[in-house]
Amino acid sequence: MGDEFEDIETLFRPLAAGAPEALDLRDDVAVIPSRPGHDLVITKDAMVAGVHFLSGDPPDLVARKLLRVNLSDLAAKGAAPFGYFLSVHWPPGFAAPNRRLFADGLAEDQARYGLRLLGGDTVSTSGPLTVTATMLGWIESGRVVRRSGARPGQLVLVSGTIGDGGLGLMAARGELTVLAVHDREALAARYRLPEPRTAIPGVLRDCATAAADVSDGLLADAGHVAAASGVAIEIDLDRLPLSGPAQAWLQSQPDSAAALAILATAGDDYEIVCAAWPTEVERLIAASARAGVAMTAIGRVVEGAGVFPFCQGEPVSVARMGWRHV
Amino acid sequence: MGDEFEDIETLFRPLAAGAPEALDLRDDVAVIPSRPGHDLVITKDAMVAGVHFLSGDPPDLVARKLLRVNLSDLAAKGAAPFGYFLSVHWPPGFAAPNRRLFADGLAEDQARYGLRLLGGDTVSTSGPLTVTATMLGWIESGRVVRRSGARPGQLVLVSGTIGDGGLGLMAARGELTVLAVHDREALAARYRLPEPRTAIPGVLRDCATAAADVSDGLLADAGHVAAASGVAIEIDLDRLPLSGPAQAWLQSQPDSAAALAILATAGDDYEIVCAAWPTEVERLIAASARAGVAMTAIGRVVEGAGVFPFCQGEPVSVARMGWRHV
Repeated sequence: MGDEFEDIETLFRPLAAGAPEALDLRDDVAVIPSRPGHDLVITKDAMVAGVHFLSGDPPDLVARKLLRVNLSDLAAKGAAPFGYFLSVHWPPGFAAPNRRLFADGLAEDQARYGLRLLGGDTVSTSGPLTVTATMLGWIESGRVVRRSGARPGQLVLVSGTIGDGGLGLMAARGELTVLAVHDREALAARYRLPEPRTAIPGVLRDCATAAADVSDGLLADAGHVAAASGVAIEIDLDRLPLSGPAQAWLQSQPDSAAALAILATAGDDYEIVCAAWPTEVERLIAASARAGVAMTAIGRVVEGAGVFPFCQGEPVSVARMGWRHV
Repeated sequence: MGDEFEDIETLFRPLAAGAPEALDLRDDVAVIPSRPGHDLVITKDAMVAGVHFLSGDPPDLVARKLLRVNLSDLAAKGAAPFGYFLSVHWPPGFAAPNRRLFADGLAEDQARYGLRLLGGDTVSTSGPLTVTATMLGWIESGRVVRRSGARPGQLVLVSGTIGDGGLGLMAARGELTVLAVHDREALAARYRLPEPRTAIPGVLRDCATAAADVSDGLLADAGHVAAASGVAIEIDLDRLPLSGPAQAWLQSQPDSAAALAILATAGDDYEIVCAAWPTEVERLIAASARAGVAMTAIGRVVEGAGVFPFCQGEPVSVARMGWRHV
């Protein structure tokens, strides 16, 4: 089975190369010098096999998804990531080639996103594969984009497309046979490997007053923004930006309002929902487009409390606002 | 079963009170303003039921041990802790009263050590109770006490007493019936609730040039110092500081060199091993004593590589240098 010291030497020390903060992983701590004029933004997310990813998912994709769900949190706050701490809990029989694949996945996305491993630990567990990361990023002092900044009169926008994460989970489980094979594969790939919106933190800092990443489901995460801001948010489900496969799935469904509600409550999209003043929306959409990210206006901030989805102008009753891991 | 949002509201939000960095746990991130002239020191440690603590251990003690093993890492580096991120993975059937006990344990040691919860997440797992913390502390710039600073000619010292953690694990498992009940209870309590040496970071910064906490076992952790420093370390097992219960156990053993080696290779002591120049040792011992911590000279740094235990002047062969969780 895994030997912690050997794993650190062969798998993880190379991932800390080039990061003086990591002290070569020799000290059980990392040291981050203060950067005057800047705040450190820190997030911590855990993933458990069978809960946050499928037990059979390839280890390199699990590693990359772990980094990406944490990157998504930092992107939504307007921060620029630079490094992370890792805890990996190897289950019984998780052999050396799988551990190597896991480390390879980390290396690949470290290069893609400019990250370095700063520290952490590896342990064994009698339970499922469990991975947690603590991700660090810098932002100019006082400029973090909070959930609490939404105000009545603002518009609500969302990046990319909504619902692919939830459909992707179904596809990865072998469901959704109503769709063509290539659509199912595209959705499953999106579930296994989300694309965090790391290209637009600057746009969010400049143009939005509140933001959150869409991990629990669009309505749930819009609800977090509404609750933190003390406002209500109305969402036009007809305006949800949908991928081709999601549109194909929608057309296969008998009740399109119910189907749209499923897409708006499924988790794992890792898009960003934000609120901006109408005067800023055009600039927000144009700047995001230049960064390669589509932003779509899907609703508005109003007085009150809660999230209110509409379809064809009629309120839609949604029993479950988003995915809760229970 | 556990509901993540309810747990956050009732159990964890109160633990973040008074920490503006935590953004009231409403943003999935914490924001740490830079502190000019200071470095942030960060450590991350995970604990799994059945590996790092016993499955039947009281949840409040598990919570407190989690904070303390991380505090021990920061203390050994000379840093002053202020807050932490938490991931808790509730196993099936870990009911509300147990979750409440866990949070109560956090609250108790937060008050004792001046800590605030900064963020994190709670998830469910099909496996054992799993908890990880990322602990943050401040230190004046460039003053972190590394493992790599040991030099030939220095003495090696250790805080408190050695071997109680390993004996305590045996006692907690119902072994060690050779000892009196009150000795077994004292050792088991030490295993379940270590006392991190948070009183002496300033002494270490001023008087030591290398330090590590003793979590894997004295010889293993002295070995980490030796390896990081490019030196060898000799340890006189006869000089090991032993608690009363450990002395009683030692006297029950037929081979005292072998018994001392067991104490020096057992894990979970959460003492501090450090290296200092002979001219600094008297000051180091006196200043530690004023802070309520006994420091004992147990060995010396020499040219070479590795750790060499001696007993009655004779080398002792030790097959296993420390506890590895495999």
